Amino acid sequence: MSDAAQDRDADRRVRESFGRQSIMATIGASVQSVRHGEVEIVLPFVDHILQQHGFIHAGAVATIADSACGYAALSVMPAAAAVLTTEFKINLLSPAKGERLRAVGRVVRAGKKLVITMGEVFADEAGASKQVALITATMMVVDTGTGLRN
Amino acid sequence: MSDAAQDRDADRRVRESFGRQSIMATIGASVQSVRHGEVEIVLPFVDHILQQHGFIHAGAVATIADSACGYAALSVMPAAAAVLTTEFKINLLSPAKGERLRAVGRVVRAGKKLVITMGEVFADEAGASKQVALITATMMVVDTGTGLRN
Amino acid sequence: MSDAAQDRDADRRVRESFGRQSIMATIGASVQSVRHGEVEIVLPFVDHILQQHGFIHAGAVATIADSACGYAALSVMPAAAAVLTTEFKINLLSPAKGERLRAVGRVVRAGKKLVITMGEVFADEAGASKQVALITATMMVVDTGTGLRN
Amino acid sequence: MSDAAQDRDADRRVRESFGRQSIMATIGASVQSVRHGEVEIVLPFVDHILQQHGFIHAGAVATIADSACGYAALSVMPAAAAVLTTEFKINLLSPAKGERLRAVGRVVRAGKKLVITMGEVFADEAGASKQVALITATMMVVDTGTGLRN
Repeated sequence: MSDAAQDRDADRRVRESFGRQSIMATIGASVQSVRHGEVEIVLPFVDHILQQHGFIHAGAVATIADSACGYAALSVMPAAAAVLTTEFKINLLSPAKGERLRAVGRVVRAGKKLVITMGEVFADEAGASKQVALITATMMVVDTGTGLRN
Repeated sequence: MSDAAQDRDADRRVRESFGRQSIMATIGASVQSVRHGEVEIVLPFVDHILQQHGFIHAGAVATIADSACGYAALSVMPAAAAVLTTEFKINLLSPAKGERLRAVGRVVRAGKKLVITMGEVFADEAGASKQVALITATMMVVDTGTGLRN
Repeated sequence: MSDAAQDRDADRRVRESFGRQSIMATIGASVQSVRHGEVEIVLPFVDHILQQHGFIHAGAVATIADSACGYAALSVMPAAAAVLTTEFKINLLSPAKGERLRAVGRVVRAGKKLVITMGEVFADEAGASKQVALITATMMVVDTGTGLRN
Repeated sequence: MSDAAQDRDADRRVRESFGRQSIMATIGASVQSVRHGEVEIVLPFVDHILQQHGFIHAGAVATIADSACGYAALSVMPAAAAVLTTEFKINLLSPAKGERLRAVGRVVRAGKKLVITMGEVFADEAGASKQVALITATMMVVDTGTGLRN
């Protein structure tokens, strides 16, 4: 495939897989963009995913941050591969509030067995953007011949 | 207060705060038990919090793991203090499937500014229990005089 | 091999590999004990591994914590396998001071590709022991046929 | 103080503190540059800090990565403040080999109590540079009135 065809293929695989993640519909997240090695996920502020102070719960922030990283990894994989998060660490920099969150995940290093990724989560409000979280995550490459597919 | 009265007070504060976390009702999690320095949260397997392979999404696993750790920290704090997660790291050991997940958070060290916690998440199925995640988390102690309360 | 023979073999492999880590002689660390899935490393307080306040540097604490975890992983591997740290996270709980540090690493889950470990570092002083660090680490299993050996 | 005077002051404070870290002389590390919110530390390849395969030990990589992050935090602090690492996580991307390592630490967010930092470690060889590690670290701000100074 040409690079453009590969990118279209990655875009399609990411969106199909994302569409099968029922948690994303539950929290209201959607895929904003898919580039080779970089995926952006958007989560509008909604009332049913908050913590006790009225901010978006760290778990929801982590959910989109982890997924942005996982799909960034998937975007550089061959079509026959799936990825599973083996670990992530997230630093929460500021309360997650505003009109919406945006998680941007990027591939730092793609190996045969592991893909190392990092990501940032931003809160958008009144035209301004503030970083609210920083994530690093390790994705394990799994052959879809095992029955797992993305 | 006596130790028993303090424990009843901690139990009440944890459950009240948890009740204000709208994300917990959304995903279906509840507080199982509150002890001094240890909190257990239960999440039954439900279809609307899954990832693309049909397992519970790592973000939902992290949500209950982080909250179990945060409330374990709160359980050892004076009534006037709130806690905020500043960072956590989670290792995902096995696919999160089964009848329900149980997250147990524990205080490792309680300082004046920071409380270090760790936790384990188990998947229960057919009477057996398997560890599926390991978390370490740092909670920042916040004076509720700042307007934040738990 | 019998279990006892396997344990002796693991003990021998860990100590041989440790003996090839020149950094351990430089900082003065040694292997205290090797059990199936658990390794203990000792580091006496010495003046040439300190940070600016006179405590043992977090990097030296991490060095023995990471190695205790890595060798705990190696202790459950077949003889033909080597392990490499792919990531670790360490929480520093208290200043690392006293007569000596002891790092205990344990296997949490041993998979075919990855071994998840955790560990604790204690400072011993005047007969008492205080936990000063908490580590979680992921080890990647490498076939020694690749040229790497432990 | 003017910005330029503040930067000279930060440079002086970082280098003085670094000079008191005996572990840095032991492993052979030195401060390459100090900017506002960014510090670079260099570690030439030497034979006495290796692991069993002949690469620089992950603990030594972590030592310079943690210090680059800690001093980046210190570079944005008032003169009366000290910083202590409360936690860091490091992903090891490739074997640490080559002529020398360079760790670059940067401030991501500077709060009153905590400074969140991240850093990268590069291996330089034959004029080329390859990233070998990625770190995120949380620094706790400590008043030097407590007796701690940097």
